[in-house]
Amino acid sequence: MDNSHLTFSTRTRHSPFFEASGAAGVKAFTVYNKMLLPTVYKSAEEDYWPIINAVSMWDVAGERQVELVGPDALALVTLMTPRDLSTMKIGQCKYVPLCNEYGGIVNDPVLLKLAEDHYWLSIADSDVLLWAMGLARGFGFDVACSEPDVSPLAIQGPLANDVAADLFGDWVRELKFFWFREFDFHGIPLVIARSGWSKQGGFELYLRDRAFGTELWERVAEAGAPYGIQPGAPSAMERIEGGLLSYGNDMTIHNNPFEVGLGRYCALDQEADFLAKDALIEIRANGVTQSQVGIRIDGEPIAGNSRWWKVLDDDGQRIGTVTSACHSPRLQENIALSIMDIAHQEPGMSASVELVSGELRPATLTALPFIT
Amino acid sequence: MDNSHLTFSTRTRHSPFFEASGAAGVKAFTVYNKMLLPTVYKSAEEDYWPIINAVSMWDVAGERQVELVGPDALALVTLMTPRDLSTMKIGQCKYVPLCNEYGGIVNDPVLLKLAEDHYWLSIADSDVLLWAMGLARGFGFDVACSEPDVSPLAIQGPLANDVAADLFGDWVRELKFFWFREFDFHGIPLVIARSGWSKQGGFELYLRDRAFGTELWERVAEAGAPYGIQPGAPSAMERIEGGLLSYGNDMTIHNNPFEVGLGRYCALDQEADFLAKDALIEIRANGVTQSQVGIRIDGEPIAGNSRWWKVLDDDGQRIGTVTSACHSPRLQENIALSIMDIAHQEPGMSASVELVSGELRPATLTALPFIT
Repeated sequence: MDNSHLTFSTRTRHSPFFEASGAAGVKAFTVYNKMLLPTVYKSAEEDYWPIINAVSMWDVAGERQVELVGPDALALVTLMTPRDLSTMKIGQCKYVPLCNEYGGIVNDPVLLKLAEDHYWLSIADSDVLLWAMGLARGFGFDVACSEPDVSPLAIQGPLANDVAADLFGDWVRELKFFWFREFDFHGIPLVIARSGWSKQGGFELYLRDRAFGTELWERVAEAGAPYGIQPGAPSAMERIEGGLLSYGNDMTIHNNPFEVGLGRYCALDQEADFLAKDALIEIRANGVTQSQVGIRIDGEPIAGNSRWWKVLDDDGQRIGTVTSACHSPRLQENIALSIMDIAHQEPGMSASVELVSGELRPATLTALPFIT
Repeated sequence: MDNSHLTFSTRTRHSPFFEASGAAGVKAFTVYNKMLLPTVYKSAEEDYWPIINAVSMWDVAGERQVELVGPDALALVTLMTPRDLSTMKIGQCKYVPLCNEYGGIVNDPVLLKLAEDHYWLSIADSDVLLWAMGLARGFGFDVACSEPDVSPLAIQGPLANDVAADLFGDWVRELKFFWFREFDFHGIPLVIARSGWSKQGGFELYLRDRAFGTELWERVAEAGAPYGIQPGAPSAMERIEGGLLSYGNDMTIHNNPFEVGLGRYCALDQEADFLAKDALIEIRANGVTQSQVGIRIDGEPIAGNSRWWKVLDDDGQRIGTVTSACHSPRLQENIALSIMDIAHQEPGMSASVELVSGELRPATLTALPFIT
């Protein structure tokens, strides 16, 4: 059983785009930051191709924002991430793994700087708000932490530029990767960022008033129609092909950034102190005991994994874990992200993957990403 | 659309009882603390009657634990709750609303004291772990915060005593309400507490090693068979009848304890300082602007609510919100918990409830609980 019915409740919140995505034929959800997040419209593969070949629109309101406002906003977020934020500009986004004092990853949001004293963390699935509140209170920072009424709608794919230009004007074609602009769209308050959880490029439209959810969805769908826009969702297949991480699947609070290919975001020699500094300096000095590797899995197409799968050596000893697996529509083979013991990292090395059924599949390690 | 398909993923974790509850016929889940939590076996009402008339067993592993260990464990948890913990004994449970410095409710767990320097918070659906970690680090406390491998299985209903006595021995009949004991059950490490999220009484078996999930489930099912035990889940109907709150449904971080009937847990005059002390003293002095009231809703049986419903006065002005509604099988009427403006609290007062469809239903305010 790899899916089931989901019982709705007030606790598992409705996105501002819920009515519109329902009308567009959403068939399944996950729960993300205690909000219903659409996962399937037609099928995983039918929803995938528009992201690759045309353009797709996604209700990713479950990617909630943690808003930090106040004179100590920068001091707080600086503590939370090993990334160097000292040169960050207003209007810029940065991918900021958040780490606790053990180096454990608490979340991996995108940070948006709206003003010198005003930031959003656009979060993966964990309550960064509570961590921020706890730290702010404990350290005595002058900063207000809250979840604002802000809900991203993503437009992803090679034709996203055309759709966005038709909607917002040609200026949006010039918007640089990981920069954003505040924009009044026919009275709908937006922050428009060139970003999104795919390798195909596109935009995230941060809706700042949930009352406009259906209107924004409909305007995007209408402008996208000539370009073949389809409703879709963050695609496991596309993001595994591209080597994008999913917090909670490929890493948890028990992983440090060096284990999952995020070492380049750890500015350990920066002047500023951050919570994970000592821990990460020690990990860097000692080296990691495991780290992320790609893996190809032989045999029939796999439908994905909803458990971590063991990776075994020829003697049946466990040498790693498959964290996210899929059948790649473009490569026509089974590909996966894995975390392997540091002694077993060599591309070309063979291993076995144990599925939940107990079936053993021959597999081969490989470099990441699968598709650049 | 009040339910849909749920896409499984590693992120939405599997409980140790997942295989066993699957074999027992679970049909639907919610996601609770990023874990699959069963919601329906036969139907909401068929699953309800065994809780009332016999005994029911629930996979509530999604009620995760936050473990606090260290010399400052008590100091940390004391900061987090307005409850007075100064006289709490080892072996005792306490219901502890957790409040931030604004008096906002962060969670409403049950606290278990395992040793002078060792506590568990058995949490509702929010990442208390991150808040605890943030506070501990910020205040410089000497305490380790983690999520241990501990997963509750609940046995609830009037015959829970008999099932537990057959399983664990007659001592368990003498276990007082909200006390617990550590117990080795045929090699399965348990903490057995007289507690649970129903008004029918029973036990929560905190499994301390997930490898024993299926074995524990099967032993409980077998011992319960003579008493008519059925697999079930926390019942919205039973808990609304009894006036039990659900975090995320009936209260959020935007509510304070006085608004939702939890004032009796706020020991504002205790010696110890806690984060919410000043805020709650001020709220007590000024009085609340809204608070919880029961409400009866006329007309056809309702299936429950997955949105907050507006409560309107005769002029169509909004005077409150229905937070949780159901059709009560015992009362054979529609009952609900609501939060009403302080001017509209009088039992017997009539109002209208606006369903998501736009339908207006006549309704009458009433005292809580509906069934004692």
